[in-house]
Order: sequence, then structure tokens, then C-alpha cells
Amino acid sequence: MSAPHVEHVEMTGHIVDSLLLPKVLDAILSRGGRYHIETLKLGERQDDPSFVRIEVRADSSEQLDAILAEVHPHGAVPAQSEDCRTVAADVDGAFPDGFYCSTNFRTQVKLNGEWVDVEDQEMDCGIVVDPEGGAARCLPMTAVKTGDRVLVGRRGTRVFPPEAEMRKHELFEFMASPVSSERPKAVSVREIASAMRKTRAAGDKVLAVLGPAVVHTGGAELVAKLVREGFINVLFAGNALATHDMEQAFYGTSLGVSLDRGLPTDEGHEHHLRTINTIRRMGGIKKAVEAGRLKSGIMYECATRNVPFVLAGSIRDDGPLPEVVTDALAAQDAMRKLIPGVGFCLMVATTLHSIAVGNLLPAWVKVACVDISPATVTKLMDRGSTQTVGIVSDAEPFIRALVAELDKGGA
Amino acid sequence: MSAPHVEHVEMTGHIVDSLLLPKVLDAILSRGGRYHIETLKLGERQDDPSFVRIEVRADSSEQLDAILAEVHPHGAVPAQSEDCRTVAADVDGAFPDGFYCSTNFRTQVKLNGEWVDVEDQEMDCGIVVDPEGGAARCLPMTAVKTGDRVLVGRRGTRVFPPEAEMRKHELFEFMASPVSSERPKAVSVREIASAMRKTRAAGDKVLAVLGPAVVHTGGAELVAKLVREGFINVLFAGNALATHDMEQAFYGTSLGVSLDRGLPTDEGHEHHLRTINTIRRMGGIKKAVEAGRLKSGIMYECATRNVPFVLAGSIRDDGPLPEVVTDALAAQDAMRKLIPGVGFCLMVATTLHSIAVGNLLPAWVKVACVDISPATVTKLMDRGSTQTVGIVSDAEPFIRALVAELDKGGA
Amino acid sequence: MSAPHVEHVEMTGHIVDSLLLPKVLDAILSRGGRYHIETLKLGERQDDPSFVRIEVRADSSEQLDAILAEVHPHGAVPAQSEDCRTVAADVDGAFPDGFYCSTNFRTQVKLNGEWVDVEDQEMDCGIVVDPEGGAARCLPMTAVKTGDRVLVGRRGTRVFPPEAEMRKHELFEFMASPVSSERPKAVSVREIASAMRKTRAAGDKVLAVLGPAVVHTGGAELVAKLVREGFINVLFAGNALATHDMEQAFYGTSLGVSLDRGLPTDEGHEHHLRTINTIRRMGGIKKAVEAGRLKSGIMYECATRNVPFVLAGSIRDDGPLPEVVTDALAAQDAMRKLIPGVGFCLMVATTLHSIAVGNLLPAWVKVACVDISPATVTKLMDRGSTQTVGIVSDAEPFIRALVAELDKGGA
Amino acid sequence: MSAPHVEHVEMTGHIVDSLLLPKVLDAILSRGGRYHIETLKLGERQDDPSFVRIEVRADSSEQLDAILAEVHPHGAVPAQSEDCRTVAADVDGAFPDGFYCSTNFRTQVKLNGEWVDVEDQEMDCGIVVDPEGGAARCLPMTAVKTGDRVLVGRRGTRVFPPEAEMRKHELFEFMASPVSSERPKAVSVREIASAMRKTRAAGDKVLAVLGPAVVHTGGAELVAKLVREGFINVLFAGNALATHDMEQAFYGTSLGVSLDRGLPTDEGHEHHLRTINTIRRMGGIKKAVEAGRLKSGIMYECATRNVPFVLAGSIRDDGPLPEVVTDALAAQDAMRKLIPGVGFCLMVATTLHSIAVGNLLPAWVKVACVDISPATVTKLMDRGSTQTVGIVSDAEPFIRALVAELDKGGA
Repeated sequence: MSAPHVEHVEMTGHIVDSLLLPKVLDAILSRGGRYHIETLKLGERQDDPSFVRIEVRADSSEQLDAILAEVHPHGAVPAQSEDCRTVAADVDGAFPDGFYCSTNFRTQVKLNGEWVDVEDQEMDCGIVVDPEGGAARCLPMTAVKTGDRVLVGRRGTRVFPPEAEMRKHELFEFMASPVSSERPKAVSVREIASAMRKTRAAGDKVLAVLGPAVVHTGGAELVAKLVREGFINVLFAGNALATHDMEQAFYGTSLGVSLDRGLPTDEGHEHHLRTINTIRRMGGIKKAVEAGRLKSGIMYECATRNVPFVLAGSIRDDGPLPEVVTDALAAQDAMRKLIPGVGFCLMVATTLHSIAVGNLLPAWVKVACVDISPATVTKLMDRGSTQTVGIVSDAEPFIRALVAELDKGGA
Repeated sequence: MSAPHVEHVEMTGHIVDSLLLPKVLDAILSRGGRYHIETLKLGERQDDPSFVRIEVRADSSEQLDAILAEVHPHGAVPAQSEDCRTVAADVDGAFPDGFYCSTNFRTQVKLNGEWVDVEDQEMDCGIVVDPEGGAARCLPMTAVKTGDRVLVGRRGTRVFPPEAEMRKHELFEFMASPVSSERPKAVSVREIASAMRKTRAAGDKVLAVLGPAVVHTGGAELVAKLVREGFINVLFAGNALATHDMEQAFYGTSLGVSLDRGLPTDEGHEHHLRTINTIRRMGGIKKAVEAGRLKSGIMYECATRNVPFVLAGSIRDDGPLPEVVTDALAAQDAMRKLIPGVGFCLMVATTLHSIAVGNLLPAWVKVACVDISPATVTKLMDRGSTQTVGIVSDAEPFIRALVAELDKGGA
Repeated sequence: MSAPHVEHVEMTGHIVDSLLLPKVLDAILSRGGRYHIETLKLGERQDDPSFVRIEVRADSSEQLDAILAEVHPHGAVPAQSEDCRTVAADVDGAFPDGFYCSTNFRTQVKLNGEWVDVEDQEMDCGIVVDPEGGAARCLPMTAVKTGDRVLVGRRGTRVFPPEAEMRKHELFEFMASPVSSERPKAVSVREIASAMRKTRAAGDKVLAVLGPAVVHTGGAELVAKLVREGFINVLFAGNALATHDMEQAFYGTSLGVSLDRGLPTDEGHEHHLRTINTIRRMGGIKKAVEAGRLKSGIMYECATRNVPFVLAGSIRDDGPLPEVVTDALAAQDAMRKLIPGVGFCLMVATTLHSIAVGNLLPAWVKVACVDISPATVTKLMDRGSTQTVGIVSDAEPFIRALVAELDKGGA
Repeated sequence: MSAPHVEHVEMTGHIVDSLLLPKVLDAILSRGGRYHIETLKLGERQDDPSFVRIEVRADSSEQLDAILAEVHPHGAVPAQSEDCRTVAADVDGAFPDGFYCSTNFRTQVKLNGEWVDVEDQEMDCGIVVDPEGGAARCLPMTAVKTGDRVLVGRRGTRVFPPEAEMRKHELFEFMASPVSSERPKAVSVREIASAMRKTRAAGDKVLAVLGPAVVHTGGAELVAKLVREGFINVLFAGNALATHDMEQAFYGTSLGVSLDRGLPTDEGHEHHLRTINTIRRMGGIKKAVEAGRLKSGIMYECATRNVPFVLAGSIRDDGPLPEVVTDALAAQDAMRKLIPGVGFCLMVATTLHSIAVGNLLPAWVKVACVDISPATVTKLMDRGSTQTVGIVSDAEPFIRALVAELDKGGA
């Protein structure tokens, strides 16, 4: 066996009770390495940061690299670090091999000996350094231009994982990890209402990501009220949510089902298609509002109050409405533009849009995800979104309770 | 091929739009028989009954028997029928071979040339005729005594299937067949409230069958209010529902989770066991109320207002509470005794008890089944319970909306 | 009350046991109309068609119209019918008001006194008549050009609903209606294998619509074998399925999870992104095969055997791969082009693509839909797709059993 | 503020990477206490135990007690401990107030200065010390007799939580925590097969806990083979599993559905009841085997090979079979008697029995839980059963793959 390959890594913060240190030690051992804790200063109170310096040993440089790759997203940074390394992109629309793959955690790169925050933090992107070498930002694969200076390897990079994984009750004041339908709902509702009020008070935006069941189950008027009262400041949805909402405004039905009587009506399903056709004939939602044709509902409130929305297209869409962004990449970009300033995100009854938005949000934006299917909630919380609380619940009853809670006022 | 075996059957009622006639014709053909419609008088309006007389032909008497067995529960009765046939039970606790297996539809047997209603109608039982031959009733297998006159074969029996399978909106004023979480909830709630009011107005009883998630999700006080205001007149549940409810009364927690704060508390899970132990030490729920120890909640209201309840035991029970009927057959009997007079049954968040109660209820008692899992709702509606509407919803929000609707009054 | 408004409608086929007649009678009554059965000839055997002529009466022409609209898709056609009526489109991309909204049932329109089959049958489209007035075809809303002669109203149209709704066991030789996980799986598998063999023998194409769980659960090699052996002739999927499949070919992992060991590997999730980046750098899947870089898996087999595929984009995609059609309308069109000739469609583990494809398929193409979530299967079967059988099952075990069954040969 | 209340606690083992230490520190802080790490020796390799001595400070003795209660099940033991304390039971069937509530972790009590292992370890019981004071064992509430010496408080007790919570891949060689249907199934199957072989090789018993879907989905013959080949040594199930299995042996159907053809048969559902009636008439399963009436299936193999089984009753049972233990407490006791010697437990498709058995098993028996519903699997894994791996899968395909894997032999 050759001489051991050695590297020193350091971690700072709430590394014990946030599980970061245990995860790092476990990672070293399970990749076949060994460790020696050189320094460990534990914080005495919950607010005190801890510090650890660990000597990592491996039998080969490949093994050592694998270990360092594994511990990197947990915040373990080489003790002596050099500037990050970049390679110029050789084709448009793809990174050089070995590109650094971003997380949604706050990240820094070392440029000219200085740690610099990465801008536009987003997971599963690459990082490009500007020509002057003074700034860095996340860039989706499709946006790469030949010649871009793309970060490769992990040298000179460090991430700041949220320390509060184990202490999510601080964020939301309740424990969210077990996704269960058997929880007191009033508590979840109260805390989400509180998060929305705090977000508004802080001047940040509340982003709502909504699926069509919001309308089917009878929640459209409630959501319209939230928009009207300034509790929803950005809306991401699809063709179906918007169409069902306007179908209700036009015909009182959703996919042909009467929302008053719960019965399918005459020529029921056609209302859906006729609604889209009408809006297409009028040239769009805003024009339908201006012409006095559309007079209530979620889309009406958004158009009236200039609440920006993105309706992202999908292959299952009928029509679609003129506002629908049918190209997936264009829709992602439209959403990206509206994310800065978002402080809280409420996702209700949509798997597709929730996952898409989850991919775009940085890890520090709090998310509440509401769906009637425990499997969907689990799926969303599994995607590394440590910032997410999951609530297994029906759309309308949840929104009704949320509106009632917000009506109470208070903090 | 031998001479055809022929029988004439007749059907009366709303046999076309209730799908009974199509089902009978399909059954004859798929068992290899042939039919000839000798008479068909269709009702002109929805309220007019129709009548059909069908000649059924088969190639063997076995085939003919199989066809008649198949069409029998759809209400097709041989045109000329004789008295029913009985055989004396030869052992305790089991029927003679060839016993008639009951449905939960209204059933008549021919005794001395007269059609007589079968009493205690319940599915999957046998039917015994009293010694005088003047009456008949359903009897569970375990209750058979040697010498009982047990009905065998289908001769001299006829059933009255609910004609309204296709027209459930008449019963509940809404279409229930598609079990979906994407329906307007307010409509379902309104109609269940209406059914509960009508049941109370008719002097019938509302039976609630409740699972522990009712308490976990925060609905105990709401249910207590329904008991207090006379909207729940009989309660079937298990050890868990009752214990969680009383744990909340004692400690403010359910399985150790604080219903105010949603957080697990000190020594959390132990509250559950200590609650049971306390009630056992006091000698039961009623005594705990009398002693002033238990002061609120579902069980408190039941004990105070003499609302009868059955707590049926299961192998997953902790404790259990003294009132729990640990023997499954004794629990079934206890439930059977309370079913006469029930006009409406509300099942929330319990698969086991819902299926058990569904097995005991006659087909003419309307049932609303609420569960957050679509699979559970489908399962309950699949069990031949044509009387059931299914609502995919969370326990607490559903009950909260139901209470709000009942508070409005009206019909 | 004014004089009754009267119309005569006729129906032909298996209208009793297929439930079409009962549905029509129920529809008339529930819209407040009355009916008189003027003629009813019931078929004696299952293969004999029946015929009915019904006088429909209503109190107003509006009511009569509503009734006729309601009974139309059940195949009830006015006894005397005139030529269909068209209006020229006045804008691009939208129909005139009152446009006829298509179903996915076989449809005919009356042109110059002749019943003519509508081409490109697809639900939720309009129907345009060619300038010569000799042919008609379905057209999506977005494809309308100013001046197109668009069908309005129901005059001179008739549909042929599948008569076998109640007798699906004829199609598949098994009863599919109850979506349940508690069915003998071997039977479902055997019948789907049989349908695939028959489709191949008839020279028709088998279309597979696959979600990424096919690869996650370990089924990629099995599907590759089906492609290789000619049992899958067209593939519709998304970026994720193709990427996971090629990630497995490159790294032996799927989303970073080793398919041999089930363990997340070093730098796990990155494999996903690096796979996409590699294919983008090479210029596409086919080029990666030609360059000898991609050597196995589903996409390899498709590329090698010229099995056409559509990878439809979605907003949750990473990358995406160069072949992904990111525009939803373009993806729908790409799928439409490949549907003619499809005789059987197998949908596994994808809600989005399954619904999208279900919208495009005519009602006479048989579909088997496999998903582990009963709610998803129910949703797909609820969408009017009477041609669909649902199987609640895991992806890999289902495909494994299907491959084993097909390996047995036979019919 | 009064003088701080102080206690020293110690922990030994893999306390960092098993998360025990972080949990203890978090518990101290969140109950408002403070800590000082007096000694921390971290193991250098994964196999080396660590040791920590912590000074815990609180503002009141109540707070200190609450903290100690919270950290106790994580293995934190007061540095100086006294003998445990007992109180004589004052009534039958209930513990004294303040009784110690057991976990399913290995537990010791201090008697006469010696740490003694608690026997019959089971969660949610009390602990009684024998009259001589030399031994202690878990006792269910209902089994308490007046005068029993019942442990109260936590003094002189310590528990050994499984250290491997984070390293479950050691037990099963795969990571089980994320309950997902999107995992490679072949890996799960392989590892469960390996665990079963190892259990058999170690002379321990494999316990199978099975629900009726095992038979419905077509898996009865596969399970029968596992019994025959000695891979299942104890069976826990209910009336339904046994009845469906024997219905298949008698009629080839399960709940009236043909397992060959998948079609409901003549008089379908009655087969279920007739099967029970037949077994009741013959006096039981064993007698039906001896009489040559029952010739195949799971129950046949169990009866023939003297594989002990418990059929626990429930209120939804039809019949039931003579062997069914209808009293829930008697059924729990019957299961308790068969648990010693069990080394591995396979639970398939039953929520009720799985939870019941999970409550009875000590924490060191490994469990694999298979169900098609992710919510059920999550529920079972949530119940503190850190020993459980969950697999979201269909019953029959899972068992088929397991049998194929076991047929391969090997370890």
C-alpha cells in the first residue's frame, strides 16, 4: 500500500445537532477512508457555533477525491484552499467535462484569494465566472456560450448547507419531517399563515404554485381573495388552473362540473374548451378583463392587480390559452425572472409545477407543499429540499382554513 | 344436444335506467344462455315502473341453474315460484351445505304461498325460518343451532336490488360514483349535512364510525359538538379513537403530539398508555366522568348524553380501555344491536371499522365514507355497497366544514 | 305552457347491454323531458344489434336542444337529419363560437346528403370540412386558419360510441372496471401479452408510453429487450426516462442510485446531469450510438432499430437532451404524426404523458395503463377513455412478468 | 433564579454517526437546559465506540426531570445510578401511577447494584421485578396482578438504542429510509432473500405476516412453496388470508374471482362463505387436511409441516374459521408465544397485522415491510420501528421475485 493520501477539512456552524458532522464522518468511513478529529469545539448553547478540523486519510488520490466530493455539500472545506479553476466552454449549450454541478445551497468560490458569493443560486446548473474574474453565477446548461469560463472541479468552492435540518421547528415552529395526514391541521395552517404575514411584513413576495384541483374542489374564490388582499404576489400555474378558473367565472362550472351543485351539467366538458376558445378569440386574459367579459376569479384578480403570473405549458394541455408559455425552457426562464424577492412559496395540488419550481428555488426560500397524496408530498420533500414542510391535505379545505386564519390578523 | 332447458323470469321496477335489465341480459349471454323478451313495458316517466318477462334457455340444467343464480340478485324472479326450501342444521355454528347466502338487499321468501319479508337483513348470512314457518330472518354462521331450519337454494326467494344505482343523485342529490379528490367539497358537505338533518327530522339515528385520525388531525372538539347537538346518535370506533380523545382531554396531546402546537411533547407517546392506565384504574369511561376526571371530548359527551357506543377491539390495541369489546364476534353482535333505527351512517378515517359496519348495514341505509386515501374510499365503495358516497378528504377539515354547514341550519 | 317541442331520435347497435339506451332515457328525464318508445327491437343474442326509435318531448326549444346535446355522444341521432352546418373561421387559432367539440369516438358528418367519416379522430378538437365539401377532419384549435369551414352545432353529425363499455372482457378477455391492486396479476399480464401479440400479428404498432420509474425500478433492460424483439414499435416518453436509461448505460446508476446495489454512489445525482451534458456535447442520442459511446438500453435499441420516439419536454426537465421537443404544441404534433397505425398502447408509470396521449388516441385503440398509484389509474380511466384497462402495479415487476409471458410465445 | 439543578449523564457506543449524541444535545437545548461536554472520545474508525460525559443543567428539578426523560431512550444514563424503584400494583389489570413505560430497545435495570437485562422486551408495557428481586420482565397492562412489583420512574434503568439508525445498509446492505416506489426492486429482493437465508442458517425463525392481497394477486402457491422449503417458519395472518387461500384450493377462486381467468365466476362471492362453512363443518383446517379435503395452498403446507400459525380475528371477518382467535388479547398472547427465536420478519400487504406485530417485536429483529401503498409503508416505518425496511410493491410480483431469488441459492 502506498503512503496515505491526506487532506485536512474544516467545518463551522451547528455541525453536531444539524447532523452535518455525523454525516461527514459517516461519509469518510463508508468510502473506505479514516479520520482523525484534530480539533473539536462544541458550542455550549444552541446558538453557539461549533468548529471541527478533521484529518482525512485515504489509500489513493481517487479515493480521497471521492471522499472530498461526498463531504463537500455538507460544508466540509479543505483547510487550505486555492482559487477555483475554470475551463472555457468549447461548444454552445453544454459544459466542459468535469464541470462543477451546483446545489441550491448558498455557495462561494475563491477568486483571486477572496471568497465570493455565487449569484442566481440554483441547483443542477454550472457556475460561470465573469471575464474579469470578479463574480460568479449559476447558469443552466442550455445558456452556455462558447468561451464562457465554466467552473470545473471542487477546488476553491464551498457551500453553506442549511444547518437547521434537524431543527425545522425553528423555521416554521413545527416539526414537519414526518409526512402524515394524521397531524393537527390547525397548527400547520396557523404557521403557514404566520409565515405569509411575516413575508409580507418583510417586503418579500409570496409565490403561489397552484394545480387545477384548487378550482375543482371549490377554492377559486378563496385564492382570488388572497390575491386581492396581497397575500399572493406571484402565481405559477398551468393552462388547466387558469382555464378552470375562468370557466367557473363564465359558466359556474369546472371541467363541466357545477361548483354549486356538484353535478355535471349540459354539454359539461365543452365549457372547458369553449372558455379557452373565447379567451383566444379575445386575444388574452387581460383583454378579456378590459372588455368586461372576465369579471371574477383568480386570473381576474391577477390581471386587475398586476400580480405577475407564469402559465407554463404541458403536453396534456387543451388549447392552450394565449398566455401559456408552451416552450418548457422559455417557461423556466420566465419563472426564474420572478423568483428574486420571493420569501415564501406555497405549493398546492400540483406535482409537475411544484417539482419544477423546487428545482429553481434557492435553499433558503421556505416552502409549504400541500397535496392530498402522501406520495406526492414525500416526493417533493425527498428532492433535497430541506426547506420544505409537507402537509397532506385536500386543496379547498386547506385554503379555506388558511383564509380564515389570515382573516384573524395578528402575527 | 339435448332439448333446451327453459325457465321464465320476471322483473319489475326501474329496470332499464337502473341497469338491472341490461345486467340480466348480459349475464344470460355470458353464461352461454339465450333469451327471448316476451313482454317489455317501459315506464314513460322516471317514476313509472317497467315490467319485463324473459324466457331463458340453456343447454343443461346446470347451466340454467348457474344463470338463475347469476340473475337472482338483480331481482329476476322465476315467473312461477314455489315455497322456499329449508334443511335442518346438523351441527352448531355452521350451515347445511347449499345454504342460501344472503345479500344486504331487501329480500322476501315464499312461505305457504305468501311472500314474507326477511328480518334482520344483513349480507353474507344464512336465512332461518321459524318453526311455525311464518317468518324468516338472517342469521350469522356462528349463531346456528342444530335443528334450525336453514334456507337452501334460491327457490321461493326474491330480492329487491336498489333501483337507483344509476341515480344516486336522487339519494344524495349529487353524483358520487367517481371517487375523486378533485370535486367541489362544499357540495358534498352540504348534502351530507342535509342527509343528517333529514335523518334527525325523520326520527332516525345517525351512526358515526370514526378512526383515530379524527382526533390526530384536531377534530375531536368538533365531533364532541356534533354529539352534544344531537347530530351523532350512535358511535362505533376502536380503542385508539377513544384513547386519543381522552388523552387530549387529559394532556392536550394525541399520541404525544400537542394539538395546539403540533409538536411532540415531553414523554410524548407515554401519554397514550397513561391515559388507558388511568381509565382502567378508575373502572371505565363513565366512572371517570362521574368522578369529574374526564371533562371534555367525544367520549365525555357520549357518556354524559347517553349516546351508545361500541369500542371494538383489535390486535393492534394498546391496553385496552375497559369498555373495549375485545372479542370480534361479541363486538359484531354489540354493533348489530344498535343498527336498527339507523337512517344515515357517516364513516370517517377508518378502513377496518368502515368495512365491518358496511358488512352489517342493510342496503337501504345511506352511507357517506370520508377518507384521505382514494384507495380506501374505492375499496369501501367496491364492496357492493351501492348505497355509499365516497369523499376523498382529510378528517378535520371535512368535519369542520360539516359543523359549519350544520350550524347554518335549514334543510 | 306552450306546445311541446318534439324530436325523434334513433339508436342502433348493442344499446341495451352496452348501457347506451338506459343512459339516453336517463338523460332525457333528468333534463326534464319526456319520452315515448315508439319502436324497440331487442337483439336476441349478444351479437344481434337492437334498434330503438324514441320520441323526445320538451317544454321549450332550449330544453330540447340541451337534451339532444346530452344524448348525442351516446349515439342517439335525429331520425331525419340534414347536412351539417359550417361557419368560416374569422381568426387564426380559434374556432367560431358554437363550434362542434369532438369526442374520440368514431364520428360521421352529413355532407351533400351522405354520411362521411371524420378523419384524424381526436377528442376536444373542432371539425373542418374541406373546401370541396367532400371530406371532414378533426383540427386542434391552434391549427385553425382564417377561412376554414368549421362545423358548428350538432346538425348532421352522428357518433358511434363503443358499444362494449359493459363488456370490456371481450376486448381484453378480463374485467377491468374495478381498479384494484388486489387482482390476480398473472391474468392481467397474460392478456396484455396476448393483445401485444395480436397487434403485432395484425401488422399494427404497439405504442409504449413510459415514465422514469421504469428505469428507477430496474426495468430498462427488460424494455430494451421488448424494443429489440419488436414488441414496442413507437415510444413516447420524456427527458427523464431517456436520461435515466442512458445514465444507467454510462454509469450503472439511475439518478445516482446504483441499480446493482441500490445504494447512492459517489457524486450520485451528478451522473444525471453529466449524462445530459455528454449527449448534448455529442450532438444527440443517435450520434452517441454511432460514435460507440452509447451501447445499451432503451434509447440505444430505439436508435439502432429505427423505432421512432418522441421525447416531450416539461418544465421540470434538467438539461434537456437535444432530442427533447421543448415546445408542448410541437410535441403534441410529433406524437399525432406517429399515432396512425397504433393498435395497442401500453402506458407505464407516467401520469403526464399518459393523459396527454389519452387525449390524442381515438377511442378504438386499446390501452393498458399500469401505475403503482390507484389514484393515477383511476384518473386515467375517468377521462372518458372507455378503452382503457387499469393495472395497479409496480413498474419493474410488471414488465418482468410481461417479458416472461411474451417469451413463452403462443397467442 | 434558583441554583441550577445538575446531573451528569454518560453515553457509550457509536453515538456520533448513529445520531444519538446530536439528538441528546438537541433535546437538552430544546427543553431549555444547558450542557457542558466534559469528556468526548470519538472513535477513529467506524467500529470504534465513542464515549461522552455531559453535564446537564436546568433551572428546576421538573425541567431536569423532563430533560432526563427525553434523553433516556437515546441511551443517556446518569453517571451515578442507584437501584431501580418499584411499587406494588394496587389493582389487577393496571399499573400504579408513574409506571415505567417500556420501549422495544434492549433495556437493563439495576437490582442490588447489578445491571440486569429485562426479559420479554416489548414496547408499551410495564416492567415487573420478581419477588426475589433478581430478574425483571416486560408485562402488558392487562396481565398485572395486585401485588406485582412494578417499576416506577427512570432511576436505575438504561436502554441500548440501536446504534445503526443511520447505517441501516449494514443490516440489510441497502439504504431503506426513503420509502419510494422508484427504487430498483431487484436489489431489495436480493437483500431480503439474503436475510432469510442467513436467518435460516443461524437457526432462527422467519416470521411471515401476510394480508389477503397475497392470495388475491395470485401469490398463494408461491408462499406455499416458501413454507414447504422451510423459508417461512411461523405465520401470522387473519381469517381472510386463510379463507382466500383455501377458497382457491377448493374452487380456484379468491373472493369469487377466478385466479386463472381473472373473471368473477358464478355465485362468485359465495365461495368465500362456503369455504368457511365447510371448514367449520369439518372441525378445522388440520382435520380438513387429514380428511383429504384440503390438498394445497398456504394453510395446507402449514398444517402438513407443523408450521405454527396464529389467525387473529377482527370485526370485519366473515365466519370466521374455527382456528381464528377472535379475542384480541388472546391473539396478542398467542403471537407473543411464537416470537422468541424469530430472527427476521416479512410483512406483506397488511396494515393491521403489521402494526400489531411491530408492537410485539423487540427492536433487534429485522423487519421487511412490503405494501403497494406508500402511505402504509411510511406509517409502519414511523412507529419507532427503526429496524424496518419498507418496500413499496405489489404483493404477487414481489413474492414471485423473492422465490426466484431464493431458488438461485447462494448467500
